Amino acid sequence: MTSALPFDDFRKLLAALPAGNAAAGERVRAQFARAEKPRGSLGRLEEIAAWLAIWTGRPPAVTKPLVAIFAGNHGVARHDISPRPVEATARAVELCAAGGAAVNQLCLAHDLGLKVFDLALHLPTADITEEAALDERGCAATMAFGMEAIAGGTDLVCIGDLGVGNSSVAAAMFAALFGGTGADWAGAGSGADAKMIARKAKIVDAALARHAGQLADPLEVLRRIGGREFAAIAGAILATRMERIPVILDGHAATAAAAALQAANPAALDHCVVAHLPVEPGHRKAIERLGLEPLLDLRLAHGEGAGAALAAGLVKAAALCSTGMAAAL
Amino acid sequence: MTSALPFDDFRKLLAALPAGNAAAGERVRAQFARAEKPRGSLGRLEEIAAWLAIWTGRPPAVTKPLVAIFAGNHGVARHDISPRPVEATARAVELCAAGGAAVNQLCLAHDLGLKVFDLALHLPTADITEEAALDERGCAATMAFGMEAIAGGTDLVCIGDLGVGNSSVAAAMFAALFGGTGADWAGAGSGADAKMIARKAKIVDAALARHAGQLADPLEVLRRIGGREFAAIAGAILATRMERIPVILDGHAATAAAAALQAANPAALDHCVVAHLPVEPGHRKAIERLGLEPLLDLRLAHGEGAGAALAAGLVKAAALCSTGMAAAL
Repeated sequence: MTSALPFDDFRKLLAALPAGNAAAGERVRAQFARAEKPRGSLGRLEEIAAWLAIWTGRPPAVTKPLVAIFAGNHGVARHDISPRPVEATARAVELCAAGGAAVNQLCLAHDLGLKVFDLALHLPTADITEEAALDERGCAATMAFGMEAIAGGTDLVCIGDLGVGNSSVAAAMFAALFGGTGADWAGAGSGADAKMIARKAKIVDAALARHAGQLADPLEVLRRIGGREFAAIAGAILATRMERIPVILDGHAATAAAAALQAANPAALDHCVVAHLPVEPGHRKAIERLGLEPLLDLRLAHGEGAGAALAAGLVKAAALCSTGMAAAL
Repeated sequence: MTSALPFDDFRKLLAALPAGNAAAGERVRAQFARAEKPRGSLGRLEEIAAWLAIWTGRPPAVTKPLVAIFAGNHGVARHDISPRPVEATARAVELCAAGGAAVNQLCLAHDLGLKVFDLALHLPTADITEEAALDERGCAATMAFGMEAIAGGTDLVCIGDLGVGNSSVAAAMFAALFGGTGADWAGAGSGADAKMIARKAKIVDAALARHAGQLADPLEVLRRIGGREFAAIAGAILATRMERIPVILDGHAATAAAAALQAANPAALDHCVVAHLPVEPGHRKAIERLGLEPLLDLRLAHGEGAGAALAAGLVKAAALCSTGMAAAL
């Protein structure tokens, strides 16, 4: 009997995700076809507008966009796998709160709301090379927190993350979900050199070995070798799907959390787009494996949802094009 | 003696283009290096901010951005080289004036001014397969018009074009400036099928044959096988350089006009970025030859400066990042 376990509610949600409104998407495509312009000339803007309509069920509009950043700390960071000290996560959260981070300026540029969620930064997860990052109750509670976090009338959610060490954790999740070893998925993160990248790869392999035979269930991957921001993002992606809110994903943790959900249900990310092509080969490969085509390629390696905030400007523009253009006379 | 010819003033300008302010660019790079973030993590946003500073000589800021669209008609369009009738140019200009074009929505999205310049649409240029598109006096006057057009206190100019047939004219200019034949440079433009593309290639070859031996001077390329929007854009690019205003280029005519200027002076485009990677292989190759890396790749094939208006959102965001971020404590 598993019905009393905390993950059961999420398994039920994942098994019965709502579909999009295909007719609403068709209406947008028909509208573009009637406009006074070469057919399909607005390229991905037309696709994005249709996608907005499919997932909201109404004409494309972005009136209350929100950037949601989830911040977590990781026990595994003690293995010297990041050029930044663990304290940098909390400092980055404070910087966002004070308005001095890059994402604050990007939110200003594109008129986006911003919420930063500190997920018990004082309490790093367990070291994934030794034990599970979270127990099932803790992981489920953090997923539930992520579900609640995006409540409150937004119509576009940009998801980003902060967390020293979380590019190693993401690499471990990619290896667990897609196969391969640490060397296939570890990368520079926030500026690791070749030696540090090699150490990251070894840490990934150690985590995979420690949890061998326990990683067939994607939610177990999330719990055992993920972390708090990963779990919260998984919850946020699920909640937006239930509430029919389109999502822009950005960063290591968002990609890895999304990969776990897609492993559980291949349609789980249909309401999501990816903001930015990663510089890191492993992260890039993970996005390819998800079948998602990034909107931007500006060589960002920044985290904190910066790519998603930039991409939100394109999504807002796409919505305006679809509703503001005149039909051919 | 050539000193009395209309092109002489432009030759003088082209020979003595002002350089950028390298120190202002260094100050921006130093500012990013001091910010609380991984070095270089904002990728091209950092480069764009430095580029803004280099060309304006002050801290990056975009407060009065302008989209300038230049519209012209072409005698060569009578050879059935576009799926759209020549009248579509004027209709597109009217649509922009009425606020119903895509570019109007994009200007709304990113808070950009918009000016559309009708360059004697009732008077198409001469058919370039038979004679020169413009005489020297007419070409110089249109360049001068383009120089005046961007006057008036803007600090970022997005250049786009409208003109039925102008992708064939651009292809002819690419062939004249970079070498090759019509087949190397002709493409789908606003939706030409394979037969029409073959016709476009033949038209390019016919124009090259007609003006053979007369195309060594890039300004002669502009005059003989260009057109009014090409000449006006060349003037606008020159004027922005003199006034130290950064430029975003977009579309066939802007690329071809820019190519003529760069052929005359290899540094002529240092104050310009390219908005969008073209879908057309020939147009894409031309941008590669200019050594410019597009900011966006959204499969746009639209004209009217749509790509430049979208890219302006990124440039504005880059400026805000460079001035709004806190330095590390």
